[in-house]
Amino acid sequence: MLDEVYMSRALELAKRGRFTTSPNPNVGCVIVKNNHIIGEGWHQRAGEDHAEINALKKITVNKQAEGATVYVTLEPCSHFGKVPPCCNALINAGIKRVVAAMTDPNPRVNGRGFHLLKQAGIEVKQGLMINQAKMLNRGFIKRMKTGLPFIRLKLAMSIDGRTAMQTGESKWITSVTSRRDVQVMRAESSALLSSGMTIQTDNPSLTVRWKELDEENKKFLSESTLRQPTRIIIDSKNLVTPEHHIINQPGETWLIRHIFDNNKWHNKVKQIIAPLKDGKIDITSLINILGNLEINDILVEAGAKLSGSFIKAHAVDEIIIYIAPKILGTTARGLCELNHLTELKDAFKFKFTDMSQLGKDIRLTLLPDND
Amino acid sequence: MLDEVYMSRALELAKRGRFTTSPNPNVGCVIVKNNHIIGEGWHQRAGEDHAEINALKKITVNKQAEGATVYVTLEPCSHFGKVPPCCNALINAGIKRVVAAMTDPNPRVNGRGFHLLKQAGIEVKQGLMINQAKMLNRGFIKRMKTGLPFIRLKLAMSIDGRTAMQTGESKWITSVTSRRDVQVMRAESSALLSSGMTIQTDNPSLTVRWKELDEENKKFLSESTLRQPTRIIIDSKNLVTPEHHIINQPGETWLIRHIFDNNKWHNKVKQIIAPLKDGKIDITSLINILGNLEINDILVEAGAKLSGSFIKAHAVDEIIIYIAPKILGTTARGLCELNHLTELKDAFKFKFTDMSQLGKDIRLTLLPDND
Repeated sequence: MLDEVYMSRALELAKRGRFTTSPNPNVGCVIVKNNHIIGEGWHQRAGEDHAEINALKKITVNKQAEGATVYVTLEPCSHFGKVPPCCNALINAGIKRVVAAMTDPNPRVNGRGFHLLKQAGIEVKQGLMINQAKMLNRGFIKRMKTGLPFIRLKLAMSIDGRTAMQTGESKWITSVTSRRDVQVMRAESSALLSSGMTIQTDNPSLTVRWKELDEENKKFLSESTLRQPTRIIIDSKNLVTPEHHIINQPGETWLIRHIFDNNKWHNKVKQIIAPLKDGKIDITSLINILGNLEINDILVEAGAKLSGSFIKAHAVDEIIIYIAPKILGTTARGLCELNHLTELKDAFKFKFTDMSQLGKDIRLTLLPDND
Repeated sequence: MLDEVYMSRALELAKRGRFTTSPNPNVGCVIVKNNHIIGEGWHQRAGEDHAEINALKKITVNKQAEGATVYVTLEPCSHFGKVPPCCNALINAGIKRVVAAMTDPNPRVNGRGFHLLKQAGIEVKQGLMINQAKMLNRGFIKRMKTGLPFIRLKLAMSIDGRTAMQTGESKWITSVTSRRDVQVMRAESSALLSSGMTIQTDNPSLTVRWKELDEENKKFLSESTLRQPTRIIIDSKNLVTPEHHIINQPGETWLIRHIFDNNKWHNKVKQIIAPLKDGKIDITSLINILGNLEINDILVEAGAKLSGSFIKAHAVDEIIIYIAPKILGTTARGLCELNHLTELKDAFKFKFTDMSQLGKDIRLTLLPDND
């Protein structure tokens, strides 16, 4: 029971890093001795100290950690990365017992951390609250295991599945509350993905707006340290120009293209060449490329064509749909183009995993149904 | 506190009549003496005894009801209808106190019942659990107050608001569980409403299927006493013929037409003439006609055209939407035709009042948002 209490705290701490740690995972750590928390920490940013080190640093009394138990949401690392291995630090501090929620799926760790600790005589318990721990790092886990990023598709529509009037008018179908929730999803993502067509038509900024994050979410961040997700624009027709808003926002912009253009681009802008399939950027190849570029989590915010392409490529790991309680009628614009679909048996199948009310709207979460 | 307990029981009893009482309301009654329930009853069918009489009949000991309290979900009637007034029976039985959830909105009662009881020296408390009581009889109340039936629009769709493939294939988008839930909604309705076009295309039966009602719902019914909702078919082009399935089902069929046809119809079939507007049956006039014909609750189960006409006429009191976790794409058929709509500000606005999971699907309830 007490183990669960301390691990819950470690999970809570881990969550504080969810806007900043990528490509690293979110990790939280609690050090407990004689039923008192004597140190806690979380991983904040790649290149900086891991959660275990941050927790050990809170211990100011010499040798206080001797005989203590460490609760950590992810297996302590065993390799020299940007920082020295946490296992060594735990062993040196005289830790007696380590309770970890999950094995680090990073092939360079993957059980080696636990092995090192055990060899040093530390008692290791693993798998406690593993599901909660996995939910914190879906992108990191997927990329470590498959080389591919975790892809969320965000959709916003009227009850009858419409995203805009026939004229294109779409500001705003959903409520302020839903749009704020999207800001949080953006902040959680390593990258936002959209199309050159959307940039040309709407000229959006595709940033996380500090003002729109709520106080709870801002607690462990500051405006100046807010990470802007990389903007990834599928732009096979080279529609994006240096004048578009996305180019001058903080953070990087990656233009996914078939051939380079001759524009002079700011150094925050990369052109990335990806292969075509049926005249369009091949989604499957692209997500492979993005995995290699250490993108953990992508939020796709696009129109009916690109949303449809992701669904058709079976590239979507989760769909989040905001539904506004309005009816727009059949002349309004639809949600996803899947023009190859003619039979009901071939419809793309999902399963509902969550629903909630958000202001006047509702928010549905779906996962692919592979049963 | 005890008052609430007994009224809850009375509401539960009232609900047992929800498949049978129309055009009468659902009413339940509990008689309590010395903190014991000595009689209970509910109204079962128009023309038969009211709830209060059924509860009094359970009392076999002479004068046992003297000094008792009656809990009833609707004001006891004061007029001679198909049965003598319940107020007289309560007075004659020596009841001391009447607790009623709501006033009977029937203009022939509307407070007169309470007045009669008070005149006879009975203590009257009213308004207890009034909201729950109102939910039981939304159709009856609306018709008594406005002359119009309560109209529920049933829709079933994929996540992206599609009701069928381009070919018309639609069997089945939603799950067995959702389709069973529709059977319960049908059973609760005085009438089902659809279009001649739907009859011509799908040739459905539009009945409540005993087998598909669940055991809980069947408890206070038998297959032979199951009421079949009146099938109301908007058929301005006289598409329905004596050969269609609906014609030979138990229960009545009303064909809403602009002119009579020359077919020889079964006596369970009525042709009702309604005025046209822009070449179609005028929805507003029609629902007036149906209110005059004592229809309390209508369930509209129609295609995109007729569903759209009801929404456009602001004739819908509640929408129930079943959403299957599938995506069909923009070439599939849409939910509601509202071809006059061009600006987002003119979209039809509702509010979500309930959401639940039904097997693999979800079910959303919406009311018009008149704020």
